[in-house]
Amino acid sequence: MESHFTERLRSAQAACDSMVCVGLDPDVAKLPDSLRQKYARPEAAILAFNNAIIQATAPYACAYKLNAAFYENLGSDGFRTLAATIDLLPSNTLCIVDAKRGDIGNTARSYASSIFNLLGADGCTVAPYMGFDAVQPFLEYPGRATFVLVRTSNPSSDELQSLILDGKPLYEHVANRAVTWGKNFPGSVGFVVGATKPQELQRLRDQHPTIPFLIPGIGAQGGPVEAAACAATPKGMILVNSSRGILYASPDENFDKMAAKAARELRDALNQTNS
Amino acid sequence: MESHFTERLRSAQAACDSMVCVGLDPDVAKLPDSLRQKYARPEAAILAFNNAIIQATAPYACAYKLNAAFYENLGSDGFRTLAATIDLLPSNTLCIVDAKRGDIGNTARSYASSIFNLLGADGCTVAPYMGFDAVQPFLEYPGRATFVLVRTSNPSSDELQSLILDGKPLYEHVANRAVTWGKNFPGSVGFVVGATKPQELQRLRDQHPTIPFLIPGIGAQGGPVEAAACAATPKGMILVNSSRGILYASPDENFDKMAAKAARELRDALNQTNS
Repeated sequence: MESHFTERLRSAQAACDSMVCVGLDPDVAKLPDSLRQKYARPEAAILAFNNAIIQATAPYACAYKLNAAFYENLGSDGFRTLAATIDLLPSNTLCIVDAKRGDIGNTARSYASSIFNLLGADGCTVAPYMGFDAVQPFLEYPGRATFVLVRTSNPSSDELQSLILDGKPLYEHVANRAVTWGKNFPGSVGFVVGATKPQELQRLRDQHPTIPFLIPGIGAQGGPVEAAACAATPKGMILVNSSRGILYASPDENFDKMAAKAARELRDALNQTNS
Repeated sequence: MESHFTERLRSAQAACDSMVCVGLDPDVAKLPDSLRQKYARPEAAILAFNNAIIQATAPYACAYKLNAAFYENLGSDGFRTLAATIDLLPSNTLCIVDAKRGDIGNTARSYASSIFNLLGADGCTVAPYMGFDAVQPFLEYPGRATFVLVRTSNPSSDELQSLILDGKPLYEHVANRAVTWGKNFPGSVGFVVGATKPQELQRLRDQHPTIPFLIPGIGAQGGPVEAAACAATPKGMILVNSSRGILYASPDENFDKMAAKAARELRDALNQTNS
């Protein structure tokens, strides 16, 4: 029997003593000149870049998150690069495909199959607006995680997520729903909760102490590392994602060394705040 | 200057006197045996199938909608098949990529570029939960349409969409927001509204008489054709999608003829109810 995702997360975090998730969201325009000159094809430059980042940061990262958008905009070559990057990940780290999918039953099954069967990801992100039957096909993969968008880190997130119903913001209703959705799928539901609203993050953690939180929004988006760290339970059920802060720590040839340094510093900051 | 999407929709509908949108959601397991035997590679069978369906239904369809999930589950070959199918569409029909994307600013820009630049689609679907900054990058393409998920056709759609705030269901708030989002992008915002809840569809139409509605949910999902037709304004601002009802009208070699018949009958039923 496959272990629950929560067990696998614990084990991956213990192996490197880290709650860091490195966001592999490569933008060709931002790659170091040295790589762009070496490779004529953008997807080749991206794969080489990802490989260098993975090699350099693996000692400090329990997971990698790949945002599908940054690969899809290169078409079928991009999809191949996404799959090839996943193949490069060390076996003791987790792979999250951040695709924010959400569609009806038979379509959701196709998306889930693409992400969990074809790409072999350990987790993915999904949108909640369509309700349970859009999420269930993902939950049916044992050992994998389905991170439901609960409270996102972007500036417009208040527009709908903060609307108040029965005295509670919509995102708290979404969180409660997501827990219900996961009832028959132990260890499979996670939340996406941005670090840009520390008080709300903390409140959600207090309400849901055992759910894995995937936390974007630190660094370039302005969320404080301390806020993310405080959401760690004693068992460390958080994945704190950093993309740009690690990938583009340096524009020079030493980009991989600087990425490793940024990942290590984030790991240490998280562990220190949480200790 | 490029025409607004609403103008292009009117023109495409006038050309074939039809409000039918054919959903090209090919499932290899459901293709006619004749095609599956002829082509060893699933993506080749799908492309041949799509080509036959397009040729047969073009006289009766103003638009085609391609759901990305059914292509992504074939990996990079699937992505190539999606692009190749779009290349087969007649120039006087519209192409909607149904991907239900929703992500933060720089990521949304990548998705929008993938759908509008790379694939050259005329419209796409997006999820509303993250708010305006997840939608704006799509709206910035002049002449294209961004269909916001307002009221979906799936069984679980009530869970969040029907929650009541200030006396109105959430989906009405989403509709009003979407109109606000489109203020500076004339003719660019559309709604996805399922036909499975006829009264709600009619009410949304009464509230928003000039917005293009993309209407799934008839046929296999149980929504009545009449309900969809009644949402047509005098200027016909609806796209009524049928996927399975047309694609799999017959499992035999005459599948294309039967698909044409199904598309023609849907067109006629919509026009008759609307006349």
